[in-house]
Amino acid sequence: MTLRSEIWEQPAVLERLLENQMSNVRGIAHTLKREEVRYVFLAARGTSDHAGLYAKYLWGTVNRLPMALAAPSLFSIYGEPPALKDALVVGVSQSGQSPDILSVVAEGKRQGAPTLVVTNDPASPLAQTAELVIDIQAGPEEAVAATKTYTAQLMAIAMLSVALSEDEERLAVLRRVPELVQQALELDSTIEEVTERYRYMERCVVLGRGYNYATAFEWSLKLKELTYVVAEPYSSADFRHGPIAVVGRGFPVFAVAPGGPVYLDMVAL
Amino acid sequence: MTLRSEIWEQPAVLERLLENQMSNVRGIAHTLKREEVRYVFLAARGTSDHAGLYAKYLWGTVNRLPMALAAPSLFSIYGEPPALKDALVVGVSQSGQSPDILSVVAEGKRQGAPTLVVTNDPASPLAQTAELVIDIQAGPEEAVAATKTYTAQLMAIAMLSVALSEDEERLAVLRRVPELVQQALELDSTIEEVTERYRYMERCVVLGRGYNYATAFEWSLKLKELTYVVAEPYSSADFRHGPIAVVGRGFPVFAVAPGGPVYLDMVAL
Repeated sequence: MTLRSEIWEQPAVLERLLENQMSNVRGIAHTLKREEVRYVFLAARGTSDHAGLYAKYLWGTVNRLPMALAAPSLFSIYGEPPALKDALVVGVSQSGQSPDILSVVAEGKRQGAPTLVVTNDPASPLAQTAELVIDIQAGPEEAVAATKTYTAQLMAIAMLSVALSEDEERLAVLRRVPELVQQALELDSTIEEVTERYRYMERCVVLGRGYNYATAFEWSLKLKELTYVVAEPYSSADFRHGPIAVVGRGFPVFAVAPGGPVYLDMVAL
Repeated sequence: MTLRSEIWEQPAVLERLLENQMSNVRGIAHTLKREEVRYVFLAARGTSDHAGLYAKYLWGTVNRLPMALAAPSLFSIYGEPPALKDALVVGVSQSGQSPDILSVVAEGKRQGAPTLVVTNDPASPLAQTAELVIDIQAGPEEAVAATKTYTAQLMAIAMLSVALSEDEERLAVLRRVPELVQQALELDSTIEEVTERYRYMERCVVLGRGYNYATAFEWSLKLKELTYVVAEPYSSADFRHGPIAVVGRGFPVFAVAPGGPVYLDMVAL
C-alpha cells in the first residue's frame, strides 16, 4: 500500500534532507539576516498550511519573528493585496503547482520582498518564482494523503530556525530526529491494538497546543481524509471556551501531550 | 430568554456604537497614520478571534494591512515573545479580562508598539493597558453565548477600516446596517420553519469564504455551544482539498453565500 510505504520512508527522507539541504538553508538564513525582515507572511493550503502553523510557533518563539498566515483569497478573490514591505514572503506547497500560493509569492516578489518557497519540486512554477528555495527532496508522493512531505516540511522549517539562530546544539538534536521517527514507526503493532477501540467512532476532537497545535490540525485532517470521521482540532485553551460542551461521556478526545510546558495543560483538561 | 433578547438588541447596539464612537475611531485612525505601522498583530480568543478573522480580511483588502493573528501561548507558555517593531498590536475581548490577551497587549506596549483594544468594558485591565480603546458599548452580556458583542466588534472593525480610508460612501453604507440587521431579525418565523428539518442533526459543516470566513467560524461555534452539534467550519477552497470526502448523501452543509465574488465559488461546490 502506497500510503503505508510513504509513511515508512520518513526516516530516510528526513536524513537526506538534513544531509543535502543544510548548507543551502544556512545560505538562506544569511540572506534573510541582510534584509531587514520584520515579520513573515506565509501562504499555504491544507497539510502545508499546518506546516505553516508549526513555523508560526517555532519561528515566533525561537527566532522572534511574528507570522501572518496569508489568506490567499485576499489575492485571488478581492484583487487588492496587502502591502508587504519588510515582510519575508513564504510559500509552502508539496507540488509547487497551487495557483493560489503562486499569486501570493509573485505579489511579494513584485513588491520587492524577499521570497522563500518550501517545496518537493524545485522545477515547479512556485519554485521558479521565488528567490530562495528549500527542496524537501521527499521523492514522488503517490498517496492522496500527504505524510512524508508533511514531516519533511516540518524539518525544513526547523532547519531554517536553527540556521537563523546559529544554534549548533539544536542542530545536534535535529540530527537525532530520523532515528526517533524510526522508533515511533516501530510502535506500529501497539498502535494497531490501541486503535481497535475506535473502530466505529464517527466523530472526535483532537487537542494540541503550542508547537503541537499544528499536529492536532494535521492529525484530524488525516482522520477525515482517510477514515471519514468528523474530527475537529482545537487548542486546549480554546477548547475550554465553549466547545467542551460537546463532550459527553464516551466522546473520543485525542490529545498531543508531550513533555514540556504544554503537558500539564493537557492533563488539567 | 436572555439569549433571545440580546440577539434582538443588536440594531440598537450597532446604532449607538456608530453614533457615539465614530469620532473616537477617527482619532484612532489619525494616530495610526502618524505611526509607521507595517502590519497588525492581533490577539483574541473564541468569538472575539472570529471578529479578528473578519479584521484580517477587511483591513487586509481595503486598508492593505497584513495581519498576524497572535498565538497567545507564544506569550504565556514559551516565554520569549515575537519582536513587534512596526506592528499595531490589537486585543479584542468582550470582558477585557482575559490574561492571555492582556499579556500580548502589555508586551506590545513594553516594546513601544501602538496598542489598540476593542472591548465592552473600558474600565477593564485590558482597556487600561492599551493606548487606544474602542468601547463597543453593547451593554451587559448575560447569556453564555456571545451575540450582540460579536456583531458590535465587527462594526467597530468596519468603522476603523472606513476611518483609515476616509471613505464617506462606505460610512453611509455602514449607517444602513442597523436597519438591515432589523430586517434579518424579522425573518425569525421563516428561520424557525426552515430549521425544523435539522432537528436531529448530529454533525454538519459550515462553509464561508473571504469576509464571511469569520461567519462560518462563528456560526459553527454557536451551533456547538448551544445545540451540541459537531459543526465544523471551512473555507470553501480548503473544503475542496480533502474534507469534502466526509460528505455523503444527506450530510448537512451550511454555506454563507452572499452576492459578490464569493457567491459563484459556493454555487460551484
